[in-house]
Amino acid sequence: MKEELNIFFRIFTTTKDAIEKFINMLDPVIRNAKDDHERLYYHHIYEEEEQRLSRLAELIPLISKFENEKEEKDFSPTNNEFNRLLQELNLEKFGLHNFVEHLDLALFKFTDEARSTLLKQMRDISYQDYQQVKEMLKKINEQFDHAYVDPHAHHDEHHDHLAPPSSLPRVKQSEKKKGFTVGSLI
Amino acid sequence: MKEELNIFFRIFTTTKDAIEKFINMLDPVIRNAKDDHERLYYHHIYEEEEQRLSRLAELIPLISKFENEKEEKDFSPTNNEFNRLLQELNLEKFGLHNFVEHLDLALFKFTDEARSTLLKQMRDISYQDYQQVKEMLKKINEQFDHAYVDPHAHHDEHHDHLAPPSSLPRVKQSEKKKGFTVGSLI
Repeated sequence: MKEELNIFFRIFTTTKDAIEKFINMLDPVIRNAKDDHERLYYHHIYEEEEQRLSRLAELIPLISKFENEKEEKDFSPTNNEFNRLLQELNLEKFGLHNFVEHLDLALFKFTDEARSTLLKQMRDISYQDYQQVKEMLKKINEQFDHAYVDPHAHHDEHHDHLAPPSSLPRVKQSEKKKGFTVGSLI
Repeated sequence: MKEELNIFFRIFTTTKDAIEKFINMLDPVIRNAKDDHERLYYHHIYEEEEQRLSRLAELIPLISKFENEKEEKDFSPTNNEFNRLLQELNLEKFGLHNFVEHLDLALFKFTDEARSTLLKQMRDISYQDYQQVKEMLKKINEQFDHAYVDPHAHHDEHHDHLAPPSSLPRVKQSEKKKGFTVGSLI
């Protein structure tokens, strides 16, 4: 379990950093939106990612706590804090899934080179991380026959249509960046 | 607390029903999407609401359990199940908030009378329910000085820009419905 916690820590620290870059990218788009619909659309995505950021600010220290302090015996469904950890990880698996889709949606709109390059980079990493989290949690959930039932298990099987990286919308490499610099996003 | 649980039960049962109506409305829109972007956009909202539906399928029986069986003494931060209930309720407060925004976004697109009437109805109820849940949880979180910190409290204060019903996008009452009947949605 220590090894898995190590990977979870890396993945959720990486995605926290990616959210910050993404919402920084959305900020000027919201301020300069051409109408109410566009403003609400990007503001809504901004808020959902901000909610995820707030949850990750609680989850990451909880992962650290188990990674650094807990004994193997604490990884047990009789430990309520461990159950909470599993529950949060299962929730954030879907946070990652939804983030990949937010990035895909943004890739349709932000086709300039600077933004599309950064978005595509984050999209590929998030997609791989989502697959790995899904795989790891599947094994952990099987291993720990705990009381918690993943309410999204059905979703994984029947409605998980995330496209792999190869089928991404094409990035228009030729399109020039529009007043956006990579520096301002990283 | 029994009275609050009663209201939570009503609100989350109502919203569960509303999600089902909403995703039934999205289904043909996804199938008949004009391009990949439109398909991903509605499919993404569909999936987020479906995730919420799965979580509510766990939360509603948990509310019932406390409503019907638990003693006043069980409403305590030393009761782990009660903490879990509070944690889930805090999460679903944001589920409701995001639902209002999904409905607002849909109202920009589905301007025919049948769909806009139903959307507006669900929007008004969800907006009121969100406000009530927020108010009730604020009091409960103060009353029970439990270990759980609402990771979204910051969000409530600084980024909660939900428009009240009066500032909704206008429903074009004149526009005729396009192959959609209210009957197919209810």
